[in-house]
Amino acid sequence: MDVRKLEALLRNVRTGKTSIDDALVRLKSLPFEDLGFTRIDHHRSLRKGFPEVIWGEGKTSQQILSIVRQLKGKGQNVLITRLEEKKAKTILSVFPKGRYYPQSRVLTHLTHPVKVTGKGAILVMTAGTTDIPVAEEAAVTAELMGNRVETLYDVGVAGIHRLLAEKGKLEKAHVLVVVAGMEGALPSVVAGLVDRPVIAVPTSVGYGTSFGGITALLAMLNSCASGVAVVNIDNGFGAGYIASLMNRL
Amino acid sequence: MDVRKLEALLRNVRTGKTSIDDALVRLKSLPFEDLGFTRIDHHRSLRKGFPEVIWGEGKTSQQILSIVRQLKGKGQNVLITRLEEKKAKTILSVFPKGRYYPQSRVLTHLTHPVKVTGKGAILVMTAGTTDIPVAEEAAVTAELMGNRVETLYDVGVAGIHRLLAEKGKLEKAHVLVVVAGMEGALPSVVAGLVDRPVIAVPTSVGYGTSFGGITALLAMLNSCASGVAVVNIDNGFGAGYIASLMNRL
Amino acid sequence: MDVRKLEALLRNVRTGKTSIDDALVRLKSLPFEDLGFTRIDHHRSLRKGFPEVIWGEGKTSQQILSIVRQLKGKGQNVLITRLEEKKAKTILSVFPKGRYYPQSRVLTHLTHPVKVTGKGAILVMTAGTTDIPVAEEAAVTAELMGNRVETLYDVGVAGIHRLLAEKGKLEKAHVLVVVAGMEGALPSVVAGLVDRPVIAVPTSVGYGTSFGGITALLAMLNSCASGVAVVNIDNGFGAGYIASLMNRL
Amino acid sequence: MDVRKLEALLRNVRTGKTSIDDALVRLKSLPFEDLGFTRIDHHRSLRKGFPEVIWGEGKTSQQILSIVRQLKGKGQNVLITRLEEKKAKTILSVFPKGRYYPQSRVLTHLTHPVKVTGKGAILVMTAGTTDIPVAEEAAVTAELMGNRVETLYDVGVAGIHRLLAEKGKLEKAHVLVVVAGMEGALPSVVAGLVDRPVIAVPTSVGYGTSFGGITALLAMLNSCASGVAVVNIDNGFGAGYIASLMNRL
Amino acid sequence: MDVRKLEALLRNVRTGKTSIDDALVRLKSLPFEDLGFTRIDHHRSLRKGFPEVIWGEGKTSQQILSIVRQLKGKGQNVLITRLEEKKAKTILSVFPKGRYYPQSRVLTHLTHPVKVTGKGAILVMTAGTTDIPVAEEAAVTAELMGNRVETLYDVGVAGIHRLLAEKGKLEKAHVLVVVAGMEGALPSVVAGLVDRPVIAVPTSVGYGTSFGGITALLAMLNSCASGVAVVNIDNGFGAGYIASLMNRL
Amino acid sequence: MDVRKLEALLRNVRTGKTSIDDALVRLKSLPFEDLGFTRIDHHRSLRKGFPEVIWGEGKTSQQILSIVRQLKGKGQNVLITRLEEKKAKTILSVFPKGRYYPQSRVLTHLTHPVKVTGKGAILVMTAGTTDIPVAEEAAVTAELMGNRVETLYDVGVAGIHRLLAEKGKLEKAHVLVVVAGMEGALPSVVAGLVDRPVIAVPTSVGYGTSFGGITALLAMLNSCASGVAVVNIDNGFGAGYIASLMNRL
Amino acid sequence: MDVRKLEALLRNVRTGKTSIDDALVRLKSLPFEDLGFTRIDHHRSLRKGFPEVIWGEGKTSQQILSIVRQLKGKGQNVLITRLEEKKAKTILSVFPKGRYYPQSRVLTHLTHPVKVTGKGAILVMTAGTTDIPVAEEAAVTAELMGNRVETLYDVGVAGIHRLLAEKGKLEKAHVLVVVAGMEGALPSVVAGLVDRPVIAVPTSVGYGTSFGGITALLAMLNSCASGVAVVNIDNGFGAGYIASLMNRL
Amino acid sequence: MDVRKLEALLRNVRTGKTSIDDALVRLKSLPFEDLGFTRIDHHRSLRKGFPEVIWGEGKTSQQILSIVRQLKGKGQNVLITRLEEKKAKTILSVFPKGRYYPQSRVLTHLTHPVKVTGKGAILVMTAGTTDIPVAEEAAVTAELMGNRVETLYDVGVAGIHRLLAEKGKLEKAHVLVVVAGMEGALPSVVAGLVDRPVIAVPTSVGYGTSFGGITALLAMLNSCASGVAVVNIDNGFGAGYIASLMNRL
Repeated sequence: MDVRKLEALLRNVRTGKTSIDDALVRLKSLPFEDLGFTRIDHHRSLRKGFPEVIWGEGKTSQQILSIVRQLKGKGQNVLITRLEEKKAKTILSVFPKGRYYPQSRVLTHLTHPVKVTGKGAILVMTAGTTDIPVAEEAAVTAELMGNRVETLYDVGVAGIHRLLAEKGKLEKAHVLVVVAGMEGALPSVVAGLVDRPVIAVPTSVGYGTSFGGITALLAMLNSCASGVAVVNIDNGFGAGYIASLMNRL
Repeated sequence: MDVRKLEALLRNVRTGKTSIDDALVRLKSLPFEDLGFTRIDHHRSLRKGFPEVIWGEGKTSQQILSIVRQLKGKGQNVLITRLEEKKAKTILSVFPKGRYYPQSRVLTHLTHPVKVTGKGAILVMTAGTTDIPVAEEAAVTAELMGNRVETLYDVGVAGIHRLLAEKGKLEKAHVLVVVAGMEGALPSVVAGLVDRPVIAVPTSVGYGTSFGGITALLAMLNSCASGVAVVNIDNGFGAGYIASLMNRL
Repeated sequence: MDVRKLEALLRNVRTGKTSIDDALVRLKSLPFEDLGFTRIDHHRSLRKGFPEVIWGEGKTSQQILSIVRQLKGKGQNVLITRLEEKKAKTILSVFPKGRYYPQSRVLTHLTHPVKVTGKGAILVMTAGTTDIPVAEEAAVTAELMGNRVETLYDVGVAGIHRLLAEKGKLEKAHVLVVVAGMEGALPSVVAGLVDRPVIAVPTSVGYGTSFGGITALLAMLNSCASGVAVVNIDNGFGAGYIASLMNRL
Repeated sequence: MDVRKLEALLRNVRTGKTSIDDALVRLKSLPFEDLGFTRIDHHRSLRKGFPEVIWGEGKTSQQILSIVRQLKGKGQNVLITRLEEKKAKTILSVFPKGRYYPQSRVLTHLTHPVKVTGKGAILVMTAGTTDIPVAEEAAVTAELMGNRVETLYDVGVAGIHRLLAEKGKLEKAHVLVVVAGMEGALPSVVAGLVDRPVIAVPTSVGYGTSFGGITALLAMLNSCASGVAVVNIDNGFGAGYIASLMNRL
Repeated sequence: MDVRKLEALLRNVRTGKTSIDDALVRLKSLPFEDLGFTRIDHHRSLRKGFPEVIWGEGKTSQQILSIVRQLKGKGQNVLITRLEEKKAKTILSVFPKGRYYPQSRVLTHLTHPVKVTGKGAILVMTAGTTDIPVAEEAAVTAELMGNRVETLYDVGVAGIHRLLAEKGKLEKAHVLVVVAGMEGALPSVVAGLVDRPVIAVPTSVGYGTSFGGITALLAMLNSCASGVAVVNIDNGFGAGYIASLMNRL
Repeated sequence: MDVRKLEALLRNVRTGKTSIDDALVRLKSLPFEDLGFTRIDHHRSLRKGFPEVIWGEGKTSQQILSIVRQLKGKGQNVLITRLEEKKAKTILSVFPKGRYYPQSRVLTHLTHPVKVTGKGAILVMTAGTTDIPVAEEAAVTAELMGNRVETLYDVGVAGIHRLLAEKGKLEKAHVLVVVAGMEGALPSVVAGLVDRPVIAVPTSVGYGTSFGGITALLAMLNSCASGVAVVNIDNGFGAGYIASLMNRL
Repeated sequence: MDVRKLEALLRNVRTGKTSIDDALVRLKSLPFEDLGFTRIDHHRSLRKGFPEVIWGEGKTSQQILSIVRQLKGKGQNVLITRLEEKKAKTILSVFPKGRYYPQSRVLTHLTHPVKVTGKGAILVMTAGTTDIPVAEEAAVTAELMGNRVETLYDVGVAGIHRLLAEKGKLEKAHVLVVVAGMEGALPSVVAGLVDRPVIAVPTSVGYGTSFGGITALLAMLNSCASGVAVVNIDNGFGAGYIASLMNRL
Repeated sequence: MDVRKLEALLRNVRTGKTSIDDALVRLKSLPFEDLGFTRIDHHRSLRKGFPEVIWGEGKTSQQILSIVRQLKGKGQNVLITRLEEKKAKTILSVFPKGRYYPQSRVLTHLTHPVKVTGKGAILVMTAGTTDIPVAEEAAVTAELMGNRVETLYDVGVAGIHRLLAEKGKLEKAHVLVVVAGMEGALPSVVAGLVDRPVIAVPTSVGYGTSFGGITALLAMLNSCASGVAVVNIDNGFGAGYIASLMNRL
């Protein structure tokens, strides 16, 4: 039932051609799907201030450029993830004000300045230096979603003192995103030190039985510390996203 | 927005208190969930003639009895799957006209005779005798859903002549449900012999590397014959159900 | 026993040289395999109107060209799957009327127009845009097998309203092919909305624990909705094929 | 270095026996572990208002009773998880004011009333009825940790209208705990409908390729919706715990 | 086409009612399945001297007794595998001349003495004592199939001298069945010492990462020694069977 | 203890310098490893007539050339497996009488004609055409090891008549090597048709859940037909080798 | 070749009946296996002071008693692992001086006091209290093998201060056995704190994705700290054994 | 609390401004993390004589050069692992006295000669020649850490005599590092021959079901011989490292 039919129905109610009871019956069986777009818009509006996110993998530079143009037209900030350097260059040649992070393969383009709406700081930590690209994806995502982001890199559990030396930083954080590959033990230790939610991000860093991040993932799911929840392997974006939702609670 | 509000809105349209444009706007943002039950009823009616299915596992005899009573009150036929013998006895002591299939742990209770609405015969086959309980679940399900069901058991590929000797039966079938454990090869051979859809059901029959049916499942997913689709391990009910949907097309 | 020997035997029956009993004995132990080709022909004829399918992977352009020539000679339509673009170009340079679908790596060549013999429409759906190549393989297969095919792409469960807005399209379909990667949830939702068989196709879209489509496959096998059967990961062809068989029932 | 040695050192600083530089050197190499208990106490105090949690599995009734007595002595509320019914009865015979939840095998004992400190409501949802025990563990945990908890059970994706009919409830929740077995699709759909963090809990409900909850876990990790983080299979406690941490942010 | 129809056809050829060409056409499309039983009989006769094998698992004592009676009636020796002790007792109470091997859960019943037809000795070896039940199943199978069987138990690779001390026995064997759990290394060492085929049988002996025999299986499949082929985990029967086929070559 | 020391000992026995008892003691504790090479030679001699096998992977052309020269010098035939085409060309430029099989990446070089010592024919079969490279490796290996080899390709179970049409060929074979990818069902069907040992070779042919040959491997290990043993995925060489050992029994 | 033959050979050398060259040839091909027992004895003697170990699983009380009697007769200390309580009671009723550890299911029987031969202390640690049975098996094994053993239980990484508070104990240890289930992170942290070898023992403690210890095992294999080696899941005995070998270096 | 604040506190104690009790309270709650670096230095000093290790993977040549310069400045020896040849060349062009091992991708640079501090010899063994790169990484690591290293390559279990012929070498070793791919059986055989700890290193050598080293790893974890501990797949460095720690005990 499209809008014109709905309008006609209402006119008939007005003129008495259709009884109110008949109209009720017809409206109750109304295919709600026609109303869907309204809902989607309403839904979208709740998310105001968040950037629009484009999954770069499997899209051509031209496709991405076209989406970016649309979003810019609507005054949206843009976050493109999983974007190869080559495509990034093409996009930056058109939108030179964008910024590309080659390690995390993320490109951001600000149509308007990001307004900080998150309540506290989100601390993004890594166990090793090779985990940094995933952490950076989380950090950039959280920043674009209106958060103050702190980082603390290379504080893996094999050198526990380096971590403990930064306990002050940990305690000041509102939400913690902890990124680790290999044995994935860092979130357990961190969650034992703070009373804030820890989002654990396994990375595919490692070799042999690290199984591309599965070992780290399993370790994080089995954390002996309470207060840890986990996202997919290398999913820095997802961690930054849910951390942002938390930081607005 | 409940019905009374909707009625009030229409009255206001009738009396002119609310303009048609305003009513349109309000209706377009109408919370569709209030219309949900209508849809569900409509949806249900499409399924007329199908039995109601109760998943017996994890429910007490008393819970099941109470559901059966409700359904009987609505004149529905009832199919209970994954029902332990002990519970079945309790239920049959109350509803003695029900029938329990101890191998497949299925209980049926007919409030009215099943009307055959399926177009052709559904042939349910097994590779071995130990696969029969799963096949029986498929057969009983399909029968209650209004199909003529044929069975052909113990025609595994190690004795290919036994299968070929029944080629006539295969060719007469409209839809084939092929149940096999161990190496799960039967659906491939059958699909090569007929031009009808084959629903393959892996069973947990086997030992060692049969991995509780995973080997059979994988073999079926990798069938070199076209025309095979697969359901979960030991899911006789699911196979009988989708075969019934097909047989009504 | 070849045909000449069989002919000789019959001649001897005719002339009385061989008694009927002796002939019976010899015929009963006749190596049936000599009759195999007859059967195959008979079998083939049942499939009349279906295209011949060539698995392109692992064949050279020359091998494929030679097969295409043979099939064309017999007046067959041809479907080549898993064909690299480079080989496709070679083949199209010889058969310029063929059509190549670079996304799904499928090439079709029509010797005669496809006659629509399927009863209803087959609806091919995807959860995301990256699932489209697999869906396209299913759609092209079903079309060549004589079906009217509708498509509905990018209606994943994270935006459930986009799906519900197309419920009319879903309800009109005779058979539904639902293609999804990542968490593979779309077939469950779709099967809950329709009373037609749903063929679920997991895709290798995703990263980390999507395990190249295994997660989507497992989710589809464990659908809480009845009426779903599953094919191998990325097996668009297989889904299109069995959907076509169903649509002729 | 124990406190007496530290005291002596300070005395020597006071009297000049030890120079400030020497004291600095000694203090800098001070074995920090001696200070550990202080930290732990400080740490504990941050958690004030949280119940003490006892993992019941692998402990005897006597061991548990002894811990409960200690905690009661300190005025702590107590939460015992994974507690068999038999042990629960022993404990309740001593502490009859405790409450045992047989489905989720949780026992609570309140020394003082729980004070609601969580900001909003935590909504605990399940896909099916068999997921309820895990959900109940999450709900009881969150309640004891000072939250208002709402529940919404049996709204699986195969009947999407039942879920949409409760969209209001979803939108009111501050944090959502979504519990599902089988294909584990519910968190994806829910996260697409709200702008709050979703904690997904896979359950071991299912059979065959549900692999005791692994399929649901994988599906949740691969959610196409943003805003989902996952805990271990059947880890209702862990979900309730992190949801509580979030609800205090 | 049954025999009477075939006879009628031949009569018509004799009388000239049916031309030879027509008869040829009809015979070529003859449903070979009707000839199947002839083949099967012929096939069976090739196996003369082999015992009939009954898979005991999932069959009731009564079902087994009934099959044993039939086979005894035909003068067949009988081998029942995977038979629980309780059922075995019932069977032995009826057929007291049978023999039950409680470790390997095998029951044999000789209607006639076994004639040794195998060419050489089959040597059945184990790595440990806990592997003996599986080895015994292989040995009993091979003996009933007409072979001279030698055994060599508990010669695992951790005490390589015990194995080397029996090199003479190894070199005299015609075929070797090597049974091992845990790391499954024995077949590799044995195959390096002999020039005869080695059938490797992984057992479910072990704990932790032995994964119920998978580790042993994988090790055997990856043997660095040539001349090894593998059967399913704990499949003593299968190993004894194929070793017997080899020993007749 | 080297040979000179042993000689000295014997001389001392001869001259009476060392008593027989002392010599016995010394000889009994003789480090047997010094005799190892003798054994190896003796062992080798048993294998006379077999080619020497070089694993080509991970060796440079120069390394391989050097080994080939040595073996040629000893009058040995040479079989090189897993040899890249590029290296093969280098080797053939030096030894132009060698023969390279590009599909199976095998190179053979005959120093003397192969003498057929195998008793019967070894039949090497494949399910599909893409399995042929692995089959060819088996065939070439078996030929070089002195066997008459027959081949039967592309007789997969989806077209069972093609297989049955060749039953004569199957029955004539002494040992059967059955090569299949995808669902790996062919060995089960073949083993049901013959009374000879079947060596099953899974191949990595397939996609998605074929898991690089694991599905075929598992299916073969779980064959419902007796008389099947299995080698590693794509291990044509191993199958040809053990088949050759069998064919000499 | 047995000793008599060897003696005869030497006699013939003495008398000149056999030339030295002939004797050399015969001795060089001497079946070394006859010398095996000498080696084994020599080998054993190296292990003097170690207890004899009996794997209790799958042995009857009578079999174990008989072995214990033999070992006692030789003056050996005895260690029985994986021994059910019921069997233990039977054995203790015969050898009341034995000691049974019900948690770790280990029984020891000292024929003579253990002499401490290990150089330093072996420290056995656990992450949780449920890991203690495995740790106890390691500790008892190491003690019987002549080591001073220290223990440190329940110092998991979620409460890092408890661990650090015991750093002194860690630094004093010569070899460390670190036992942990769940996420298995403790060995990484410990190995970062000490400069001694760490033997990591994963336990089957946990639920859901702990997969019976696989997660802990994988985490340990992927330790970001150097100096860690791993044994099988729950293999306390193996850890105690290799730690003892190290402690004698 | 930084050093200046600590100094101020002590001054106040000296002057009496702060009472000893107050100072004690402040010191006990002292953030130990500020003392962390001291500890680390102390810790480092224990490792004196060990080279600094740089993980080369994922670092640029420039980053590595900068680290090497720093370490050289401190007089440290340097070990770089997992270093691509291309980067190695860049580094050697700057530090031409370094040495690169192309097979194991290790680069060493000695600032001062290595002093042998290990007590005995470390024997590094391999099953095959393709395992040598991993073995070389272990050997180079152990040498730089101050050990005498022996090697014994290509002594796999399929030719057990080659191994036994070197038993003397085995018995002389203090610690054994045993490197093997494929079925990973060598450590079991070796551990049965010696009374020294065996560090087993699985390699990714193999194909098909070797699963990139998982099969070898599992076999090693399930060794039937006591005295084996395992490191990650291809982790030659880790094996050399822990062997070095052992050799200093």
